[in-house]
Amino acid sequence: MCDVCVMNSVKERMLTRRDMFRGGLAVGAGLTAAGLGTAARADAHGSVFDMTHAYGPDFPTYFGEPGIAMEQTFNFADNGFNLFQLSLNEHTGTHIDAPLHFSADGRSVDELEVGDLVVPLCVVDIREKAAADADAQVTPDDLEAWIAEHGDIPDRACVAMLSGWADKVATDAFRNADDEGTMHFPGFHPEATALLLERSSAAAMAVDTLSLDHGPSSDFATHYAWLPTGRYGIECLAGLEQVPAAGATLVVGAPKHRGGTGGPARIFAMI
Amino acid sequence: MCDVCVMNSVKERMLTRRDMFRGGLAVGAGLTAAGLGTAARADAHGSVFDMTHAYGPDFPTYFGEPGIAMEQTFNFADNGFNLFQLSLNEHTGTHIDAPLHFSADGRSVDELEVGDLVVPLCVVDIREKAAADADAQVTPDDLEAWIAEHGDIPDRACVAMLSGWADKVATDAFRNADDEGTMHFPGFHPEATALLLERSSAAAMAVDTLSLDHGPSSDFATHYAWLPTGRYGIECLAGLEQVPAAGATLVVGAPKHRGGTGGPARIFAMI
Repeated sequence: MCDVCVMNSVKERMLTRRDMFRGGLAVGAGLTAAGLGTAARADAHGSVFDMTHAYGPDFPTYFGEPGIAMEQTFNFADNGFNLFQLSLNEHTGTHIDAPLHFSADGRSVDELEVGDLVVPLCVVDIREKAAADADAQVTPDDLEAWIAEHGDIPDRACVAMLSGWADKVATDAFRNADDEGTMHFPGFHPEATALLLERSSAAAMAVDTLSLDHGPSSDFATHYAWLPTGRYGIECLAGLEQVPAAGATLVVGAPKHRGGTGGPARIFAMI
Repeated sequence: MCDVCVMNSVKERMLTRRDMFRGGLAVGAGLTAAGLGTAARADAHGSVFDMTHAYGPDFPTYFGEPGIAMEQTFNFADNGFNLFQLSLNEHTGTHIDAPLHFSADGRSVDELEVGDLVVPLCVVDIREKAAADADAQVTPDDLEAWIAEHGDIPDRACVAMLSGWADKVATDAFRNADDEGTMHFPGFHPEATALLLERSSAAAMAVDTLSLDHGPSSDFATHYAWLPTGRYGIECLAGLEQVPAAGATLVVGAPKHRGGTGGPARIFAMI
């Protein structure tokens, strides 16, 4: 892989294994087994993490209506095979916001560059303040703190907000609508979005909630600042609590229907 | 990654770069840059290859009807954003056949193990005979020849047929229906399927055509032999001509709608 993060990650694992080389092992094989063996102990699947919610008609959506309906058009008993026709709102489940979603003529989801779908993952953890305030936002200070600890945001990275909201996905607390119907969940502050645009070449931003903008937003300032620049977004990302703040690679299995404004994606993180 | 194929691939790259170590470079960093640099020259995206066709209503389907319809329910001029409602046959585009597709109660697409979605890729090239006979099939002899050249099929691999059909996807020659409506394209012979079941732990088989069974099949013998065992299939895979016969890792971004029999997937190969 050419990806900077993967290179750094592999390099770091190798540098910490220098003792192995001195021990006289066959260099290539010993190095490989050592470096990858370390990662393989990370979880039951080795170093691959599923960052995708399973979803159905009951999965929470921004508009509050079911995002998918499934009609069984063939069934095994009568037809010898099973098949469903899906009716699907593009912005359902763990999904992509393509530039076209919030621009007149931006890139559609099939036009995202493949190189922007396998990218370094930066996880900005705001769980503590989100637990205290459902309307919490990723601020410039949060990004500065991440950079101070981990260094500059890598080229073409995905910068992800970890608010802890993924744990609420099966409950009303995910949309968290008040009596007036206003939702309350975390998102990216427009000033943090501006900082990313000015000081990084990040390709994507991701949230573990229903929207890049926090729940009460009515102006969608982050959507309008981010997507028309050709960058994309990921909403309802899962599993961010499983991966390190820096060093993982996100593999974004974006859908590829022509002209789409986004769509459900299968997303993995690799360490 | 714990994946056997990736380990072998990295190991091979490293072994071929032993000269670099002797040259006195810093071992960790020099090794990393050399190994990954080699792969990065493979294409414009480094070592990530997109194995997915873009698709729309005109993409060829098994039944010959459009597999997707897109209704624009919000548009930028009137609503400030774009969004489509999709009507989608699960088995459209580059897509998954989950075990449930050809079994009464097999695993649905959301139930596939994550470890079976990041797997070694074995490419069985039958382009020569497929060019001479559109009904050509992967036979036990083809698999034996692959094994003789590359060794045993790796644990949980995806075994893919490269027939050259991906090049025809925008033409009627992809379905290649005759005057009676019978289609003619390559697939896996049931005897090759039986061999894979007996002599490998392959997790998936893939084809660059519309069906695991070749076009004239009316008994779907390969589907019925393979899918009910809990293994899955990939149809309309693209890009197989870009990757080596052995040594790549396939990352299968299967959709994750609950209870699905399959669905459009975003698939990458990494070397």
